[in-house]
Amino acid sequence: MDLLKIKDYASSIDAQLVLIDQSRSGNDPNKKTVLVYGHLDVQPAAKEGPVIAWIHAISVLQKKKVPIPVNLKFVFECMEESGSQGLEPALQHHKDSFLTNVDMTCISDNYWLGKNKPCLTYGLRGLCYYFVEISCAKQDLHSGTYGGSVPEAMNDMVWILSQLIEKDGTIKIPHIYGTVAPLTEEEKKTYEDIDFCLETYQNDIAAHGLLKPTKAEILMNRWRFPSLSIHGIEGAFSGSGAKTVIPSKVIGKFSIRLVPNMTPEVVDKLVLDYLNDLWAKRGSPNHFHPFAGHSGMPWLADYKDENFRAGARAMKRVFGVDPDYTREGGSIPITLAFQVIAIRNMYIDFFCRKHFVVSFFQELTGRSVMLLPIGACDDMAHSQNEKLDRSNYIKGTKTLAAYLLELAG
Amino acid sequence: MDLLKIKDYASSIDAQLVLIDQSRSGNDPNKKTVLVYGHLDVQPAAKEGPVIAWIHAISVLQKKKVPIPVNLKFVFECMEESGSQGLEPALQHHKDSFLTNVDMTCISDNYWLGKNKPCLTYGLRGLCYYFVEISCAKQDLHSGTYGGSVPEAMNDMVWILSQLIEKDGTIKIPHIYGTVAPLTEEEKKTYEDIDFCLETYQNDIAAHGLLKPTKAEILMNRWRFPSLSIHGIEGAFSGSGAKTVIPSKVIGKFSIRLVPNMTPEVVDKLVLDYLNDLWAKRGSPNHFHPFAGHSGMPWLADYKDENFRAGARAMKRVFGVDPDYTREGGSIPITLAFQVIAIRNMYIDFFCRKHFVVSFFQELTGRSVMLLPIGACDDMAHSQNEKLDRSNYIKGTKTLAAYLLELAG
Repeated sequence: MDLLKIKDYASSIDAQLVLIDQSRSGNDPNKKTVLVYGHLDVQPAAKEGPVIAWIHAISVLQKKKVPIPVNLKFVFECMEESGSQGLEPALQHHKDSFLTNVDMTCISDNYWLGKNKPCLTYGLRGLCYYFVEISCAKQDLHSGTYGGSVPEAMNDMVWILSQLIEKDGTIKIPHIYGTVAPLTEEEKKTYEDIDFCLETYQNDIAAHGLLKPTKAEILMNRWRFPSLSIHGIEGAFSGSGAKTVIPSKVIGKFSIRLVPNMTPEVVDKLVLDYLNDLWAKRGSPNHFHPFAGHSGMPWLADYKDENFRAGARAMKRVFGVDPDYTREGGSIPITLAFQVIAIRNMYIDFFCRKHFVVSFFQELTGRSVMLLPIGACDDMAHSQNEKLDRSNYIKGTKTLAAYLLELAG
Repeated sequence: MDLLKIKDYASSIDAQLVLIDQSRSGNDPNKKTVLVYGHLDVQPAAKEGPVIAWIHAISVLQKKKVPIPVNLKFVFECMEESGSQGLEPALQHHKDSFLTNVDMTCISDNYWLGKNKPCLTYGLRGLCYYFVEISCAKQDLHSGTYGGSVPEAMNDMVWILSQLIEKDGTIKIPHIYGTVAPLTEEEKKTYEDIDFCLETYQNDIAAHGLLKPTKAEILMNRWRFPSLSIHGIEGAFSGSGAKTVIPSKVIGKFSIRLVPNMTPEVVDKLVLDYLNDLWAKRGSPNHFHPFAGHSGMPWLADYKDENFRAGARAMKRVFGVDPDYTREGGSIPITLAFQVIAIRNMYIDFFCRKHFVVSFFQELTGRSVMLLPIGACDDMAHSQNEKLDRSNYIKGTKTLAAYLLELAG
């Protein structure tokens, strides 16, 4: 670490942050300034990772006496695995000092789409979460005594939830597809060339079927079209075995993944209007209260900008192939990670976290943010036997060094 | 207790039972033999109850030197609040000894329909419980990564469950109403005279509406028509807050209350055929497994037999009015009792227990069983401030004594 000088790591607001200016090159106004984000906390302990790869990349360039052609700034966070608590105020604090003059940001914290071909990630879907509350009485009722007497909340609930999606996954909310950016023939073609095996994808999760038959359609459904998932019902009987309760108050939960050009404001209105229309059509005497929960905008970068072009040239240098340009449907491509979190009863949406970091850097710097993953899709993030293949690590380190060189190219 | 001799209370199989033959009158072959069932265990402690009322009734008759004109046998159980564990083998053990020659059984363990008018109970609905298992993958999935790719189990589930009942509570399973005993004009009239306030019934549970507008229709819906209730979904997200899971395997649960002449065998076939037909119509690639859980036959006594006629005359003597003839939709008219059990995580259906006891005595003795309640509908069985009004206790005790006298009439 002697090659780097820790510039600012003191005030209480920075307790979880390490902000580093590359010391040797200083802040040369004739060079571009690249911001690198990474996080130092792990879950569970991983000895190597993209942050160390950055350090190695710089170390190698220095040993080989290759001048680093850009100004480098690092933001290393220590609370990423705890929801990036404190990151926003800490970075806001440095908005006009450390974060000024940043030309581009690189975040190496996601994964390749597959196991063989490198990729650059330029998009994440957004999210709108919804709650539908229906109540029929002040307390749970016994189905023997009240079955046949009372319009049951669960009966209304399953009907409402059954009106959200077609069998093929099409969202039934009127006008929702009108908010989605039109698909051009040019964009459509990009999905056909991506290295992605539909069969492996399906087999990995032992899914009994997929909603679309072709690779391009599935990638588009994951990345550039919205999807609606019904997550569950709070307040109904959810244990094992049999219980003859009539639940008095149930809360249905579903969410929609947003893509450009959808915004939570517009989607909220479409969804809540539709739910209220359905309820009017239902004509139930029960109490009905639909409401929107948290939301996040989709993120989409221009993968033809100089940041991405440099990343692509670096990958071509190291791997000998042009990278694929990928998006992510949410945040974490490894579902196991999600499950670990679920087990810990931390119902945090990974999406929100990574999405937050990406959008936040883009907003604070006003410049391009690129996701440059070096790990493969089977690294089992946060799960048992988490790993980073040696070849990925070495080539990844080379890629990061090459990226810095290419940025000046 | 010196007026009664404990005859048989020894063997291990009887550990939870107290079987008593009335000692003074012996087993007079010229008298009818009446079996009385009650339970001694409580939840929580209640100092007085129907069992003590029986003892008092006999004590008073003896003090007044009124000969008891029947042979009396008592079965006092001590495990009723724990699911009547051991009752069946213990009674089977005494089927050909203690339980022979029983002419009728009286059970005083339920409640009046209201607070003012006494009733005799001659029917209980039965039950069939169903599970619908749908799975889409081997593990829960993240809706960001897989939303839009996979036909989700919850989407199929809410659709299947939405096909079970109409908005007005009508069961959509074909031919199910064909299994229900036809309603005669004579029977229909009986519901109109029953002392039952629809408004109080609705207000007690703060229901936002009822499925039928008239007293007679609601009573019929509770007692003599089947009802279907959706209880919940196992495997989906049921906690509070937001979680963006795609549940991989979900189990929907619903039950149908049975009435004469429905039988679990016939109902199971209709329900499972319908579910399989729905699934074929759905055409989903997911795995589908519907199956029947526990079931119980409906119970219906002839309320014009000599057992009920004696009970009715006794009530007329004490209260000055003819009793109402009631049924119960399940077992326990006080829903709070159900909730106490739910809190304790004992998912026992009260119905099954009481139903079990009633049917069991009927089967073992081959003779009439009558439910003669002495408590009012607001006694809050098993709940906070459980009570038995003094007037109900005194008049109830008189009714039991009068019943014994009337049996010989």
